[in-house]
Amino acid sequence: MRIALLGGTGDIGQGLALRFARDTDHEVLIGSRDPEKARDAVATYEENLESRGADADVKGFANEMAADRADVVVLSVPPYYAGDTVEAVADNLDSDTILVTPAVGMQGDEDGLHYHPPGTGSVTELVAERAPDEVPVVGAFHNLAADALSDLDHELDLDTLLVADDDDAKETVRNLATEIEGLRALDVGPLANAAEVESVTPLVINIAKYNDDLHDVGVKFH
Amino acid sequence: MRIALLGGTGDIGQGLALRFARDTDHEVLIGSRDPEKARDAVATYEENLESRGADADVKGFANEMAADRADVVVLSVPPYYAGDTVEAVADNLDSDTILVTPAVGMQGDEDGLHYHPPGTGSVTELVAERAPDEVPVVGAFHNLAADALSDLDHELDLDTLLVADDDDAKETVRNLATEIEGLRALDVGPLANAAEVESVTPLVINIAKYNDDLHDVGVKFH
Repeated sequence: MRIALLGGTGDIGQGLALRFARDTDHEVLIGSRDPEKARDAVATYEENLESRGADADVKGFANEMAADRADVVVLSVPPYYAGDTVEAVADNLDSDTILVTPAVGMQGDEDGLHYHPPGTGSVTELVAERAPDEVPVVGAFHNLAADALSDLDHELDLDTLLVADDDDAKETVRNLATEIEGLRALDVGPLANAAEVESVTPLVINIAKYNDDLHDVGVKFH
Repeated sequence: MRIALLGGTGDIGQGLALRFARDTDHEVLIGSRDPEKARDAVATYEENLESRGADADVKGFANEMAADRADVVVLSVPPYYAGDTVEAVADNLDSDTILVTPAVGMQGDEDGLHYHPPGTGSVTELVAERAPDEVPVVGAFHNLAADALSDLDHELDLDTLLVADDDDAKETVRNLATEIEGLRALDVGPLANAAEVESVTPLVINIAKYNDDLHDVGVKFH
């Protein structure tokens, strides 16, 4: 399978790229608005992976080309770019492409971060609204700390939460997520349940802020 | 210390009553609008605790009297009664009483439960708004599954999240929460950070709904 990480040079994109490249046999495509930047990131990722003896199958492209070649397209961009990025690559998506969105809207003040969803109720639903009708959208990878993901020495023992209206697409992403070592994927139902999932992201950041012994906080449900 | 559980005959009240009675040396006061109902609940709790060889120090009162006698008053009532219950017992609270609120506003539909806070931003902040100015308010025990709490055979390994503007009150509740076996208390900052804490409650219920192997779901951060 080919997994494109649009905005794959950013923090969550880097973490997912490294984990998918190290832990799975899938081909990882790094997308960026600037293909040169994507290729530079790939060089860094490959160096990291090869120093650990991992076989690196990572390539860099402009976002559009990465989306065009991929079976699963992860929108690892900041929330305020999510809608525009979907529209920029819309012609490169079809009913066989699964669009995955991990972005969360937040606002900060002196107390911490607060959940700040768009008018659609969640960034996940905003992506679904802006995506072509035939393209299935899955919310996933929202609450993972980018630093923990990107540090391949850090052993994960975390849950990621999935929301989607398309059960087949959700199952594909569930299997993909589960291939990352130490990651469990839990079903949280349809896209309408996305807000409570996204809201955990500012919460885990606040927990790291107020508890000295916790960094790069993730979550496990049981 | 004396801990009053107002609405202590309900599901979360029962769970906290049994855990505090079994795991700590504090005196547990069950409050209800109907003192007879409180005393009936106490009889059931005592039977449960004594069958396990636990020393039961639990008494039943009307809410006002329970609040009057207590050092820590837990508002274990449904969210739509939280504000009115605070006002009903306001004369029985003072600056030496800590008011603890675990209630969360939710609305359900066919997809699951959705976070539905009041206009104040959270039930926790609503309680703080309705409480006398001198009474410190702590949000705690929001995301614990009542059935798991009430089943004393169920070993907890969970986090509870604390928000408060009064650091001393927060510290007292943190110590109290930690006395419950298997419960860790994490600081999430001031009352303004309550919404993201409360929002986990509908999320854990949705996770239980969509994952057959998970019941009475709680959460652990790491």
